[in-house]
Amino acid sequence: MVERLSDAERKAALLELGNWRHEAGEDRIVREFVFADFRVAFGFMTQVALQAEKAGHHPDWSNSYNRVRIGLTTHDAGGLSEKDVALARAIDAVATRMGAR
Amino acid sequence: MVERLSDAERKAALLELGNWRHEAGEDRIVREFVFADFRVAFGFMTQVALQAEKAGHHPDWSNSYNRVRIGLTTHDAGGLSEKDVALARAIDAVATRMGAR
Repeated sequence: MVERLSDAERKAALLELGNWRHEAGEDRIVREFVFADFRVAFGFMTQVALQAEKAGHHPDWSNSYNRVRIGLTTHDAGGLSEKDVALARAIDAVATRMGAR
Repeated sequence: MVERLSDAERKAALLELGNWRHEAGEDRIVREFVFADFRVAFGFMTQVALQAEKAGHHPDWSNSYNRVRIGLTTHDAGGLSEKDVALARAIDAVATRMGAR
C-alpha cells in the first residue's frame, strides 16, 4: 500500500517537476502536452501506456488531435503518492523526446 | 469539404448506430466503452487511432484505466458529418472484437 505524500513531500515534488499543476480538490497533478500532429501525440501516448502498464499505475488522460492532457493521482492512497511523481518524471522524459511543446 | 448532416440524416444515423448518444449543444455523438483492463482498453485505442489516422478524422477521447469515452464531431462542418458516422461504425466493430461492454 503506497502512502499519500505529506505537504512537504508534495511541495518538493511539485518544485522538482516544474510543469505540472496541482489540483488541490482531488489532490492530483495535471499537465497538457502539444505535439506536431495526431501521429506524434498518439506515439507519445503509446510510450506512456507501456510505462504505465509496467509500473502498474495508470493516468487519467484525454486527447484531441495533437493535444494530450494527463492527470495523475493514486486512488488507493486518496491523493498524490510517489507513484505519481515517478510516472510524471517518466512522462516528461518521453514528452521531451517526442518534441512536446 | 464535408457537409453537416441534415436533421433527417442525423436521425437515421443515430438509429443505425444505436449505442451512441447525441449531444445537441455541440452536435456530437458520444459513447463510453468498458474493457477488461487497461491493456485491452489501450489496445482498443490503438486500433481506433490507426483507423482515425487512415481516415484523416480523429476522435476527442479520454481514458481512465479500463474505460474509454469517445466523442465525435466534424469541426470543419460545424457538427456531425458522414465522417463521424463512418468512424463510429469502425469504432463499434473494433469494440465488439475487443470484448467491450
